[in-house]
Amino acid sequence: MDDETFLSRAIALSMENASSARGGPFGAVVVKDGRVVGEGANRVTDSHDPTAHAEVVAIRAACAALGTFDLEGAVIYTSCEPCPMCLAAILWARIDRMVYACSREDAAAAGFDDAWFYEQVAKPIDARALPARRLLEEDGRRAFQAWLENPDRVPY
Amino acid sequence: MDDETFLSRAIALSMENASSARGGPFGAVVVKDGRVVGEGANRVTDSHDPTAHAEVVAIRAACAALGTFDLEGAVIYTSCEPCPMCLAAILWARIDRMVYACSREDAAAAGFDDAWFYEQVAKPIDARALPARRLLEEDGRRAFQAWLENPDRVPY
Repeated sequence: MDDETFLSRAIALSMENASSARGGPFGAVVVKDGRVVGEGANRVTDSHDPTAHAEVVAIRAACAALGTFDLEGAVIYTSCEPCPMCLAAILWARIDRMVYACSREDAAAAGFDDAWFYEQVAKPIDARALPARRLLEEDGRRAFQAWLENPDRVPY
Repeated sequence: MDDETFLSRAIALSMENASSARGGPFGAVVVKDGRVVGEGANRVTDSHDPTAHAEVVAIRAACAALGTFDLEGAVIYTSCEPCPMCLAAILWARIDRMVYACSREDAAAAGFDDAWFYEQVAKPIDARALPARRLLEEDGRRAFQAWLENPDRVPY
């Protein structure tokens, strides 16, 4: 099984979704040791979950199947370049490699905000469209101190 | 109820987590029309879900409670500046405003990769630490075409 085969499965998932009312036309597959360990399609609208992008769904499925929060050694195949949420999810999951078909520009042409979100995420907090206010810094930092002092903490 | 009150609740959730083995020391609260509609703490390690950051957990809870994928009109209170995954989740959820306590630098000092992920997300695909390969562009684009031609599609 090669990259084309697994990416074709991700694209097939995106095609199934495209003609449904379940969510956006996106599909993703997580592969480890040569086999599919999780897959998903976008379920934002039908599951009432703005985080249910194909990559997030596939990562959550893979982690549930393998009983771990760490997908080191895995490859993700996605029908479209991940949005910043999904890219960071891939990084947090410690996935090794990504294979994709469409670009953020393709997604933008179909009405999705991925490209604009990439611009927003790259800006300093106070330059973004999302208003932000910072408060209670010292109170907030106490949690990090307590974490560092906790012998049972599990780093990730 | 003011910003300090709701942010204090998010910080309290982060403190509870900090002395547990459930996940990282992060908490978040989503407020709409002056009341809490969803809250969450980080559950990455105990739920085997690398996407279970406090903000994502709180957004999913709020959307489930309200039966919608759109949190326009809501405010998110988070114990720490969101990572790129959570920031993009906030943007996808169309949340109006963000109030936060700690910064990405505070998180980095406690061993978390948020600041490095911000750098990675801002880079062009081929300049990132995550290897990426692009294939089957034309096949992938067919899903966007099918979506645009689908009269039942639900934009988000």
